Amino acid sequence: MKKNHVVWDDRFVKRDERNRLNNHKSGLTWLTGLSASGKSTIAHLVERELFKKGIHAYVLDGDNVRHGINSNLGFSREDRKENLRRIAELAKLLVDAGMVVLAAFISPYKEDRAYIRSRFEDDNYLEIYVRCSIGECERRDPKGQYEKARAGIIKEYTGVSSPYEEPETPDLVLDTEKDERETSVQKIIELFKTKNFLKL
Amino acid sequence: MKKNHVVWDDRFVKRDERNRLNNHKSGLTWLTGLSASGKSTIAHLVERELFKKGIHAYVLDGDNVRHGINSNLGFSREDRKENLRRIAELAKLLVDAGMVVLAAFISPYKEDRAYIRSRFEDDNYLEIYVRCSIGECERRDPKGQYEKARAGIIKEYTGVSSPYEEPETPDLVLDTEKDERETSVQKIIELFKTKNFLKL
Repeated sequence: MKKNHVVWDDRFVKRDERNRLNNHKSGLTWLTGLSASGKSTIAHLVERELFKKGIHAYVLDGDNVRHGINSNLGFSREDRKENLRRIAELAKLLVDAGMVVLAAFISPYKEDRAYIRSRFEDDNYLEIYVRCSIGECERRDPKGQYEKARAGIIKEYTGVSSPYEEPETPDLVLDTEKDERETSVQKIIELFKTKNFLKL
Repeated sequence: MKKNHVVWDDRFVKRDERNRLNNHKSGLTWLTGLSASGKSTIAHLVERELFKKGIHAYVLDGDNVRHGINSNLGFSREDRKENLRRIAELAKLLVDAGMVVLAAFISPYKEDRAYIRSRFEDDNYLEIYVRCSIGECERRDPKGQYEKARAGIIKEYTGVSSPYEEPETPDLVLDTEKDERETSVQKIIELFKTKNFLKL
């Protein structure tokens, strides 16, 4: 085989090249909040809004992560840590690949959220607190999990038998008890504009 | 909160919608072969070629997977299985997100490759055998790992102290001992055309 003089670095397609191809920046928006607070629903509605504008967005949530790459993890403190570690690495790859990642996970511990944040640059990361009272979340209880948690059938359930530590300095707080979904979606789109989150 | 009558299914942006936005199909191309056979280099050169055509391609290899999401795995039979399971799930997400994934992994066991293949539809998957003799791979030995494996410093090294099971019916066989890199790259691009791998 003849010598190949291609410069190594040129072989790798870099994030900023992908961002120019897509005509928007990539980054991670992290939505934290109680189960049934509306994180995943809002993330998917934002994804749809962005898609309409030709923006490459992708939702990571329990449905596609807990049932896929993290299907061998439970809900102990240790497993929750590993769950979030893998999600951070997954999000890094997707952001590197040019995607706007909308990650919707309860992520109840400050320590874990600080870890996620530390893995991204400041202008590639936003934290959104999807706030909803435990009373309202329990009233919604779409999968009957709060009921099972109260009955002790599900152990270590956030907000019932496991703590939720509220974010202290999120980039945005949504109030899904008061606001309609569309209002929450528009607040996130506004935040993206204010922070130049999508702008090259 | 008022009732929201959005149909659930409409919320999710589906793969075919992303494919239409990108103007190309997404799928997984799996490159298997010995260490130092040239898998990763060729994958990155193909990624660059595709990028030039505006195609959203992304390489998964030891560098971004073994040091990231799979950094807590070793090289035992069990860990290799888990390594590939996570890679399959990772590739599924990237393909769902609209990317052409080029995965370059030794993947020495037929059983593991069959598992990966089973996770994808036929027209979203290609297997490429990057063939190079063990003698030539040892001669190249860019990281000095074959030498360490021969000295017994690295255990269970594929081709030395751990088997490599050749693919029986790959979609393409490359010969990186004889061919120049550019030839291998062009053979892959030709394969994509023949198989309509990128065409909507």
